[in-house]
Amino acid sequence: MQAIDTSTPIGFIGLGVMGSSMASRLQEAGYGLRVHTRTASKAASLLERGAMWSPGVAAVAAESRAIVTMLGFPEEVEAVYFGPGGVMESARPGSILIDMTTTRPALSRRIHAEARQRGLQALDAPVSGGDVGAREGKLSIMVGGDPEAFEAAQALFRVMGSRYVLQGGAGSGQRVKLCNQIAGFGSTLGTCEALSFAVRAGLDPVKVLESIGAGAASSWALTNLAPRVIRGDFAPGFFVRHFLKDIKLALEEGEAMGAFTPGLALAKELYASLERMGMGDKGTQALYLLLSGAGSPIAPAP
Amino acid sequence: MQAIDTSTPIGFIGLGVMGSSMASRLQEAGYGLRVHTRTASKAASLLERGAMWSPGVAAVAAESRAIVTMLGFPEEVEAVYFGPGGVMESARPGSILIDMTTTRPALSRRIHAEARQRGLQALDAPVSGGDVGAREGKLSIMVGGDPEAFEAAQALFRVMGSRYVLQGGAGSGQRVKLCNQIAGFGSTLGTCEALSFAVRAGLDPVKVLESIGAGAASSWALTNLAPRVIRGDFAPGFFVRHFLKDIKLALEEGEAMGAFTPGLALAKELYASLERMGMGDKGTQALYLLLSGAGSPIAPAP
Repeated sequence: MQAIDTSTPIGFIGLGVMGSSMASRLQEAGYGLRVHTRTASKAASLLERGAMWSPGVAAVAAESRAIVTMLGFPEEVEAVYFGPGGVMESARPGSILIDMTTTRPALSRRIHAEARQRGLQALDAPVSGGDVGAREGKLSIMVGGDPEAFEAAQALFRVMGSRYVLQGGAGSGQRVKLCNQIAGFGSTLGTCEALSFAVRAGLDPVKVLESIGAGAASSWALTNLAPRVIRGDFAPGFFVRHFLKDIKLALEEGEAMGAFTPGLALAKELYASLERMGMGDKGTQALYLLLSGAGSPIAPAP
Repeated sequence: MQAIDTSTPIGFIGLGVMGSSMASRLQEAGYGLRVHTRTASKAASLLERGAMWSPGVAAVAAESRAIVTMLGFPEEVEAVYFGPGGVMESARPGSILIDMTTTRPALSRRIHAEARQRGLQALDAPVSGGDVGAREGKLSIMVGGDPEAFEAAQALFRVMGSRYVLQGGAGSGQRVKLCNQIAGFGSTLGTCEALSFAVRAGLDPVKVLESIGAGAASSWALTNLAPRVIRGDFAPGFFVRHFLKDIKLALEEGEAMGAFTPGLALAKELYASLERMGMGDKGTQALYLLLSGAGSPIAPAP
């Protein structure tokens, strides 16, 4: 297919924290956008800068040649692609569908297969790097699909990410993203459990970080999440409920492959507990609160 | 007490991989060493460069004013300090005892109390940074004990480590080291589980690292251990059986404090399994072998 350039009409569906920053980057790079999102007010700043509002998914799909989706849960992806007035039935043949939501690998494969039937291309392209990475165009984009589609979409990935790797066929991007979440859980658990242990032992957690922050125990979580925990800041970089969704997807996928994933199984128990405790909208570092059993975040045990 | 300088006779007991490098650093910095270790041949290169061999612990203690120990297990520390002809009964009043073994915090407190009774000073000063850190004098030294003793010993710590922090009273150094191991386990688990998942999914683990190695999933373990796993290299940087010892110490300590440490509990199950499988002398990254269930390290599941 023809490579995408700034004359290609781009559709963007899903303008949450991540999606709106990613769409902004594309806009700043000169792309003309057709946008749609559930809560129309979230599109305001994009529209001010020239994006066109579409009244629904069908209109975005019909008017674009590359359609990017950045949604929350697999159910939403399913509705947007396969529902009535969805992307599949509305996209024009020759278009490319790029789902950047973290979702079920099997759903990515289904999108890919259905797209092919209809003369469309599809990529799964979930990201890591958080809100900051999205704003700065420094996401890591993990791509699954056909090499030609990847080639065609590179121009867009270049604007949104500082690295983008074709990992394999449809669903591979999703599976790599799940690997990312598995590794991330381990470090987050280690960080929160070490802090909880330190505080209960009556140690000064700031001094503890001074000693352990740069060696074999070091991680992004220890560097970035531990100071937030110590400050009592449990605001979301990444939501507990989204992390729990990813953990469940990884568990489901692991089970289907016959993988032994005791860390994931523990992750599910712990993050499901956090959600039941009403902490679904806190950041993943709220795991500390569960481990320490503390109402007040960092007070040493008596 | 008087600060230590190169005219102070230093005793060094325990010349394993870590101890021999640490003693070498002291020797290169101009300190005169009296050394003793279970396997005399391990002292050879230190003796060639002028260290004096002592026939036993008692002789090292009697002839030194600062006595450094770097042993394996708490039982050895107990024997060397409290056994017949041990450090306690042989050290001259005014001496300082520095145990750099990772051991039981309660044992460090016992050494400290007994030392005080005898007019000695004692510090617990376990390290992280591995064999490379020991060779290069770049260890992180986590110290527990009295501030005056810490002051006096700083000259030695400066030679062996790039950071040394007084964490609190006797046993605090040990507790911080246990925090280090707790955080380290989390990242190691996340790394090995993500790799095992990736391989079972038929992904290329090198490409997976390319995508996930620099973001929120990143850790020392992912950067340093994952490439070894991919190469099939399970040689020890840090031994499974030593890690298991530390995990058990942390669990024991956590239980006594009433801490909730589900990660540690899992760590014990996994590393105890590895040891039972005969992998005690492999490196901690051998966890991958248990998770993947693979005899051959990196071959994708059929």
